Amino acid sequence: MPKQQRAIGTRAAILRGAAEAFGRNGYGSTSLADVATEAGVTKGALYFHFDSKEAIALAVIGAQHEASIALGHRMLDGSLPGLEAIVTMSLELATQLCTDPVVAAGIRLTMESSVFSSPIVGPYRDWMAVCEELLGRGIAEGDVAVGTDVAAAAHFISPAFTGVQLVSEALTGREDLDRRVDEMWALILPALVAPDRRERLLGLPTRLRAARAAAASRS
Amino acid sequence: MPKQQRAIGTRAAILRGAAEAFGRNGYGSTSLADVATEAGVTKGALYFHFDSKEAIALAVIGAQHEASIALGHRMLDGSLPGLEAIVTMSLELATQLCTDPVVAAGIRLTMESSVFSSPIVGPYRDWMAVCEELLGRGIAEGDVAVGTDVAAAAHFISPAFTGVQLVSEALTGREDLDRRVDEMWALILPALVAPDRRERLLGLPTRLRAARAAAASRS
Repeated sequence: MPKQQRAIGTRAAILRGAAEAFGRNGYGSTSLADVATEAGVTKGALYFHFDSKEAIALAVIGAQHEASIALGHRMLDGSLPGLEAIVTMSLELATQLCTDPVVAAGIRLTMESSVFSSPIVGPYRDWMAVCEELLGRGIAEGDVAVGTDVAAAAHFISPAFTGVQLVSEALTGREDLDRRVDEMWALILPALVAPDRRERLLGLPTRLRAARAAAASRS
Repeated sequence: MPKQQRAIGTRAAILRGAAEAFGRNGYGSTSLADVATEAGVTKGALYFHFDSKEAIALAVIGAQHEASIALGHRMLDGSLPGLEAIVTMSLELATQLCTDPVVAAGIRLTMESSVFSSPIVGPYRDWMAVCEELLGRGIAEGDVAVGTDVAAAAHFISPAFTGVQLVSEALTGREDLDRRVDEMWALILPALVAPDRRERLLGLPTRLRAARAAAASRS
């Protein structure tokens, strides 16, 4: 049992080290030796747990996507209105990107995965499916304009967020990410919200952000 | 002179080979040997022209950005209305990405450049500056709504396009890029266009695409 626990601890250390190394230098420029050094384990321990560099990267992507999409599933299972849930997801994901090295690395590796033996497309499709479902609810709830092409909208919102966080990282190390996400919504919401809810819903990101700040200061 | 011409030819071959290799496998997973093989030159010839892998990648990015931003500068110098010019740029850039390996590689390398000795941020800033200027003209021309935050809009349009082409490449090898660019505009234009021009301008991408197709079939 202690032996098994040690193995679990080593595997977790490898994933954390891999997230640091891949997150900093990308997939191609990170060697297995870099991962071992960052994780504080031997290359032997690395090979005991993973067959290859790609296998480690896939494990980081898996851990990140599991943590991130859990947020999407909470929104699907929860009671927030659909449109509010989508905006909430984007704020939360931005926070995860800025605070959790595994999330930052997983998203970077997903973007770089065209070099893998098979590119990673599941996360893009999963986010689009969650968005599409929530936009459909938004129509039923009267927040999203009737006639909105929810598949097309979901297929834009997710890549738009991908681009916004990528450029925010390149230009400011993600320091301006919150602001850029707000600006993203300011340019997308007018196309989405039902005409009679414009006044209330165009300020949604600001309102949600204020509520999050208030909740954080209470806790 | 023949010697100098040969050197120019070799340099061009290296750039084309580098674009193919980097475009296919990304920066980190491409070796100098891969570039030499793809270019059909010796490693000696490679080192005669370039000091390092990063230097070759920078040359590819430079060639791509020069070709792509020339489009932006033609729009700034030309007579198209500002908003029409921005949409035209996005359609043209999508075509370049699908047909010119140097453009596809340059944009990929720019996205991966956080691993370089200094990351590439100029292209993002250049595109944002062109967009901002054209949006400003759009306000003066009455197409873009008065009061639009043109800096914020430019700072979203450019990353949004980056994300759209990235995800289109991952999911379909850019086969659906034209359609995704149209959907992007369908979700951004309602926030941008002046209320009294909505009817005419919301169909702008469709109209411009039809005009391009007609022009192509005439030539």
